[in-house]
Amino acid sequence: MSIASDTPEPYDVDHSDKTRPHIIDTDVHETLTSTTKLLPYIDRQWRSYITDFRFTDGFVAGGNPYAYRGGNRMDWSRDFGPASESVEALRQHLFVEEKESLVILNGFFHVASIKAEYEFAAALASAYNDWQIAEWLDKEPRLRGSIHVTDHDPGAAVREIDRLGDHPQMVQVFLPTVTDRQYGEPHFHSIYEAARRHNLSVAFHHGSATQTVLGYSRYYAEWHVLAPPQAAMGQLTSLVCNGVLDKFDDLKFIFLECSLGWLPWAMRRLDQNIKECAPEVPWVKRLPSDSIRACVRMSTQPMGDVKPSDFVRLVEDVESDELFMFSSDYPHYDADGAVQTFPAAIGRQLQQAVLSGNAIKAYPRLEAVQL
Amino acid sequence: MSIASDTPEPYDVDHSDKTRPHIIDTDVHETLTSTTKLLPYIDRQWRSYITDFRFTDGFVAGGNPYAYRGGNRMDWSRDFGPASESVEALRQHLFVEEKESLVILNGFFHVASIKAEYEFAAALASAYNDWQIAEWLDKEPRLRGSIHVTDHDPGAAVREIDRLGDHPQMVQVFLPTVTDRQYGEPHFHSIYEAARRHNLSVAFHHGSATQTVLGYSRYYAEWHVLAPPQAAMGQLTSLVCNGVLDKFDDLKFIFLECSLGWLPWAMRRLDQNIKECAPEVPWVKRLPSDSIRACVRMSTQPMGDVKPSDFVRLVEDVESDELFMFSSDYPHYDADGAVQTFPAAIGRQLQQAVLSGNAIKAYPRLEAVQL
Repeated sequence: MSIASDTPEPYDVDHSDKTRPHIIDTDVHETLTSTTKLLPYIDRQWRSYITDFRFTDGFVAGGNPYAYRGGNRMDWSRDFGPASESVEALRQHLFVEEKESLVILNGFFHVASIKAEYEFAAALASAYNDWQIAEWLDKEPRLRGSIHVTDHDPGAAVREIDRLGDHPQMVQVFLPTVTDRQYGEPHFHSIYEAARRHNLSVAFHHGSATQTVLGYSRYYAEWHVLAPPQAAMGQLTSLVCNGVLDKFDDLKFIFLECSLGWLPWAMRRLDQNIKECAPEVPWVKRLPSDSIRACVRMSTQPMGDVKPSDFVRLVEDVESDELFMFSSDYPHYDADGAVQTFPAAIGRQLQQAVLSGNAIKAYPRLEAVQL
Repeated sequence: MSIASDTPEPYDVDHSDKTRPHIIDTDVHETLTSTTKLLPYIDRQWRSYITDFRFTDGFVAGGNPYAYRGGNRMDWSRDFGPASESVEALRQHLFVEEKESLVILNGFFHVASIKAEYEFAAALASAYNDWQIAEWLDKEPRLRGSIHVTDHDPGAAVREIDRLGDHPQMVQVFLPTVTDRQYGEPHFHSIYEAARRHNLSVAFHHGSATQTVLGYSRYYAEWHVLAPPQAAMGQLTSLVCNGVLDKFDDLKFIFLECSLGWLPWAMRRLDQNIKECAPEVPWVKRLPSDSIRACVRMSTQPMGDVKPSDFVRLVEDVESDELFMFSSDYPHYDADGAVQTFPAAIGRQLQQAVLSGNAIKAYPRLEAVQL
C-alpha cells in the first residue's frame, strides 16, 4: 500500500526513504463505548455477567475517584463522530489530519485490573482482543494491536498470547501499570517468555487503577502529576532489580505515557544502588542504565511545555537516541501532534528516530513493514 | 562560643565571615538504643507499655521487611563507641573529623508511624523529645533538635509543639514521609500553624514505614532507589496541590534524604498540570515551581556518584541556588562528607550556600546564630 497521498509536501519530515513509515504513533486508545459490544465475542457462559449482573465499565476501570478532567482533545470532538470510537474517526484524525503512517492501539480496557473472578477477566480479555481485531485491525491495515491479558493468572495470559501472538497486526502484550503487583516477580516471567516466543514486545500503560505512592491523591491534578510516572518507576525498578532485563535481554519493555524527564535521574539512582547492593541481587548482570538503554523504550506524550532544546538535552542525558518513541495519546485532551512536538529543530536524524525509526527497532513485528 | 580550634586551616571552605557557621549538617540521626531509655521521661501510666507489653523498637519502625543493607559508615564504627549512640562519638565524628559547625538531629524514631494507640504515641513523642533535650541538646550547644509529634492526632501534635517550640535549640517539627497519609490535607494545617507560631520549619524524612508505589518492593535495593524519593514526591505534590505552600508561604518545608535529581522534572510537571487543572485547585495561587523555590528546601545526601558539574547543572535546572542544604546522613553507610561532596569546584559562593548559608535562611531559629 501507499500512503503518499496522505502526506503531501512540503512536510517537516524526511521522506527520502520510501520503504519506511514516517510517523508511527505508539500510544493510541480505541474506545469500547459499552461492554455489551463484547457480547458477540465472549463465550455464552459469561454473557450474563455483562447483561444481568453487576459488571460495568467502571468495574474494569478500577475505581478512579475523580470527576474532574479527562476528556478528548477539543479539535477531535467534531465531524467524524466521537473521537476514538470508530475506525472512521481515527482514520480522519490521525491518518489524514495528523498524517500518521502506522498507529499502535492499546485501548483503555484493563482487564488485569480486575481483582477477582480471574476466569471471567480472562474471557473478557479474549473477547476484547477479538473485538479489537474485528472492529479495528481488520478494517484498517495501518493499525497495529495489543494483546490484552489477565496477569493474575499467568497461565491464562500465556494461553491468550499463544492464541493470538502470530496475528500479523499484533505487536505487543499489554499490561497495565498497576500498583498492587510487582512485574519483576518470577510469577510473571512466563508472560515474557510467551512474548518472546512470538516476537512481541511488552507494553505498560497506567489506568484508572494506577495509584500514587499515597494512594489516590485528593485531586486529579496530583494524581495526573504522579500516578503514571511513579507506577512506571516502580515497575521499571522491579524489572531491573529482579533481573528481568538481563534474563530477557532480547525483549523490549515499553512504558507508555509515563513522562520522560525522571528517567536520567532513575538511571543514575539505579546504577548507584545496584553498585551498593550488588550481593543482594546477583541476577542483575549489567548496570541498570545499560540494560535500560538496551531493553526499555518510552512513548513521548505528554510533552507539554517541553522545548525542543530540553528534549535534545534529555536525549543526551540518557546517552541514547533510541529510547523515545513518538505517541499522540489520541484522543485525550493533552494529546500531542507529531511534527508540532518534534520539529526539525531537534535535528533531522533525531526527529526521524523519534517519529518512526525507534519504534521500528522496538517492535520486532514492525521490522518487515513495507508501506 | 568559638569553634575555631576545631576547624584548622588550610580548609576548602571560605572562612572569611567569622560570624557565621561554616558547615551546617541538616540530617543527622541520633540513635535511641533501647526504648527502655525513655522510661525516665514518660508518664508512669505508660511505662508498662514498654516494660511489660508488646512494644518494641521494631513496632515503631513500622515493619521494614529487609534484612539486607543498612548499617553505619565503616570509618565511624571504631574508637569513640558506636556511631550516633552518644554525644561523645557524634562530637568526635562530626565536629572533629568532619569539622562541622552545627548539626541538626532528627533521630530515627517515628512515633507518627504508629497506626494505633495514638495517646501512647503522643506520650512516646514527648518522652523522646525530652530524652533528646537531656541526652543530646543539653550536652552539646552545637546541636539543634527536632520536635517529634504524632500527626494522627493533630491536637496532641500542636500541644507538643507549643510545649517545646520555644526551646532555644529546637529548629523544626518532624514528620515522617509516611505513605498512608497526605500532608496537604486540611486536617494537618494546625501543625503548620503551630510551627509558624514558634518560628520553626517543618521537616520530612522517610522511615522504615515508608513504602514505594508498589508497597514494599521485593529487595532492599529497589526500596532504597524508590521509597524515599517517591514518598517525598507524593507529599510535596500534596502540599502544592492543596495550597499549603500558598497558605503558609512564610514557612519552610524541608525534605530530608530523598534524592535531588527528580526535582527539576517534578517542578515542570507540576507547573504543566496546575496550568491544565487550575479550576480544580483554585487555592493554588502561584506556579508550583515558584512556590517550591520559595518554600521548599532539600538536604543533599545521598549524592553518590554525582559529579560537581552535575550538581551545578542541577542548581541551574531548578533556577535557584538556595534549595539544597548539605547533610551527611550520619551515621549511615552511604553518609557524605561535606567538602569531599561539595568541593570548591562547584564555585565558592555555591559551596558556602550549600554548606551553611542556605540552612541559615531555611531555619528562622538559626538566623541569630553567632558562633
